[in-house]
Amino acid sequence: MNRKLGKQTIGLKICPYIISRASVVGQKEGEGPLKDSFDMIVSDDKMGQISWDLAEGAFQKTAVEIALKKANLKNSDIDYILSGDLQNQCAATHYGLRETNIPFLGLYGACSTMIEGLSVASMLISGDYAERVIALTSSHFCSAEKQYRNPLEYGGQRTPTAQWTATASGAVILSNAGNGPKVTHITTGKIIDKGICDVSNMGAAMAPAALDTIVAHFNDTGLTPDDYDLILTGDLGVLGSEILCDLIKNDGYDISKKHNDCGKMLYNIEEQDVHSGGSGCGCCASVLCGHILSELEKGKYKKILVAATGALMNPLTVLQGESIPTISHAVSISI
Amino acid sequence: MNRKLGKQTIGLKICPYIISRASVVGQKEGEGPLKDSFDMIVSDDKMGQISWDLAEGAFQKTAVEIALKKANLKNSDIDYILSGDLQNQCAATHYGLRETNIPFLGLYGACSTMIEGLSVASMLISGDYAERVIALTSSHFCSAEKQYRNPLEYGGQRTPTAQWTATASGAVILSNAGNGPKVTHITTGKIIDKGICDVSNMGAAMAPAALDTIVAHFNDTGLTPDDYDLILTGDLGVLGSEILCDLIKNDGYDISKKHNDCGKMLYNIEEQDVHSGGSGCGCCASVLCGHILSELEKGKYKKILVAATGALMNPLTVLQGESIPTISHAVSISI
Repeated sequence: MNRKLGKQTIGLKICPYIISRASVVGQKEGEGPLKDSFDMIVSDDKMGQISWDLAEGAFQKTAVEIALKKANLKNSDIDYILSGDLQNQCAATHYGLRETNIPFLGLYGACSTMIEGLSVASMLISGDYAERVIALTSSHFCSAEKQYRNPLEYGGQRTPTAQWTATASGAVILSNAGNGPKVTHITTGKIIDKGICDVSNMGAAMAPAALDTIVAHFNDTGLTPDDYDLILTGDLGVLGSEILCDLIKNDGYDISKKHNDCGKMLYNIEEQDVHSGGSGCGCCASVLCGHILSELEKGKYKKILVAATGALMNPLTVLQGESIPTISHAVSISI
Repeated sequence: MNRKLGKQTIGLKICPYIISRASVVGQKEGEGPLKDSFDMIVSDDKMGQISWDLAEGAFQKTAVEIALKKANLKNSDIDYILSGDLQNQCAATHYGLRETNIPFLGLYGACSTMIEGLSVASMLISGDYAERVIALTSSHFCSAEKQYRNPLEYGGQRTPTAQWTATASGAVILSNAGNGPKVTHITTGKIIDKGICDVSNMGAAMAPAALDTIVAHFNDTGLTPDDYDLILTGDLGVLGSEILCDLIKNDGYDISKKHNDCGKMLYNIEEQDVHSGGSGCGCCASVLCGHILSELEKGKYKKILVAATGALMNPLTVLQGESIPTISHAVSISI
């Protein structure tokens, strides 16, 4: 147990390197402020497929191909691939990755999947089970709207607190050797349910999960907000971010000067009419694998904490009157 | 990489012990040939909940409680809990486990989830990240029929190749110390899709995945069917089992004398009218956590290979004309 810090955090003795990364985004994401950080901006949101569902898989497939190419690696160089998505039974992942021929571990963490994947991938490498592991995820605005809310043709009005599901995929390759930012700590979240039932206000539902995990991280490690150049949440959006920064003061931490949120960064919020910001597994994945890791590589950031959040309900359970269970997983990344 | 054997298999240096196990099943499962091996047989398939969806979560919750009680442990003694299920967005798991207050990693492996969970849990312990981990899963006939096929009230006819989704949950507690059967090898499957589209014949769709993983296990380890007292598949059912035993001869292995399948064992197939046998995440979970681990503890089996199989489509992708991607994960368990 020499690596365990506190109840929820692992300090990795052997820190895996993020040796490659790829981000593939849709047109709208490619018109946002981070457009120069993405590897590919796709104008056809069906990616040549017959459905949005399969298109989302094609985003994942393309992200894997780009990440491998950038590292000059082949599929057979990878020991495990870890992924999941928001579609029922994670179908985007399974169809997108079915030709990879790489041992596969399927994850479900909703919009926390990118960091859940990074966590498990890091443990596979640090535990000497693997040399190289790919972690990725995706979301697609059209497949998500159809499944979680209304068919696009319905033209439903969105509430001011609603977030915009990103059409995007992000992938990293972790390795036990090489160059790149390193994963140093893993804080695994617990399921948190504060009784919130409004699926048009995911930021409010998920903020308590981010709070729980970030506070656990600080308490477990003895680190404070001062130790980080950036404390990044997955996709709390504008409202959820405010709630988090407010609530965490009660625990004695002020993160307001260090905090940002992928859902606030991916779009020009006012101009692109995304209401409370971006969301979806692909939001955190593409912002991390595009802009954020680039800034770490450039040395703008030296040490960051990334806490992705996920809402764990399905549309049926909410119609049955149930509240929204949530989770947040965090990793520390350093250069 | 000293633990890696071949491309897909890990030989664990530190083998975690299965120190506790629990199985909770429904009425029909409790009338089958393994009835004496289960910890609890529930006559109310709603478990006092308002829906089958939440009932399935209650099966998981109960399985965790029983497994903890049998080991004289509290929730706070557990470092991680790993689970997933067949409901959209794994809702049974999230609602069932939301009060556990244990760091949670969500998995999606369809009916392979029990062994995916055992695999990751074993790596968490062997890699010194955790002392004790719970792995579990569930399925529920009524929630699965509603979601994957037809409302029960519709009274749809079942094909001869169809399998019966088990109403059941099974949970294990793995520990780095104690007594019990040990997990010694982990073979992680790849996504396999042989173009089969018939969702009423899951055994045929999944048999190639079991084949791929079991052959990889033998090739990676140098072990043969003679080294095992039992080669158990998850839920190929009657037809899928025949296909597996037939196909694997082409790879030079005869498993016919050692093979059995949880889907063939859970019910009296003819009398209970389950057509090709049992299926669902809870089938492998309850048979393993009930009958099989009991036989290992008694010494009837000394070394077994368990390869659970999962079908990774969703109902929509199949209606869109897509074939069924599948996977199989395997672990070796020894006394």
